[in-house]
Amino acid sequence: MKATVYVTIKENVLDPQGNAVQGSLHTMGFDEVGKVRIGKYMELDLDTNDRAHAEERIKAMCEKLLANTVIEDYRFELEG
Amino acid sequence: MKATVYVTIKENVLDPQGNAVQGSLHTMGFDEVGKVRIGKYMELDLDTNDRAHAEERIKAMCEKLLANTVIEDYRFELEG
Repeated sequence: MKATVYVTIKENVLDPQGNAVQGSLHTMGFDEVGKVRIGKYMELDLDTNDRAHAEERIKAMCEKLLANTVIEDYRFELEG
Repeated sequence: MKATVYVTIKENVLDPQGNAVQGSLHTMGFDEVGKVRIGKYMELDLDTNDRAHAEERIKAMCEKLLANTVIEDYRFELEG
């Protein structure tokens, strides 16, 4: 089973990396770019076929390691 | 219009960050985790309503700044 995890910075938290990318894009002439937010995208192979169990485990991984839930949100998809 | 960009490390390129996360997950008892690959997830607001033009511009941003196309692949979605 394959899990895809998306970790994004919460809406009300500053994203300095996003601001830096926005500034660079403007400098390069991409003036139409407004807000930029940068997050993480993770693909994990899981050695299980039990979807309910996999959901529970991925949730635990996100809460404990993959996301900092004070400043980040996460969501995930399972396939296979 | 909103663009979502996914930047991933090419399949045949080593991902040390992914290996480190995999190792940490194993140490924490998540033994079912196999390969872990880590990429970037970006959300950009674009001040345009012309989808074809936006596609062309996002492609240029990816090629020039957002992705290192020597070692990374990118794909994007447009909405709105």
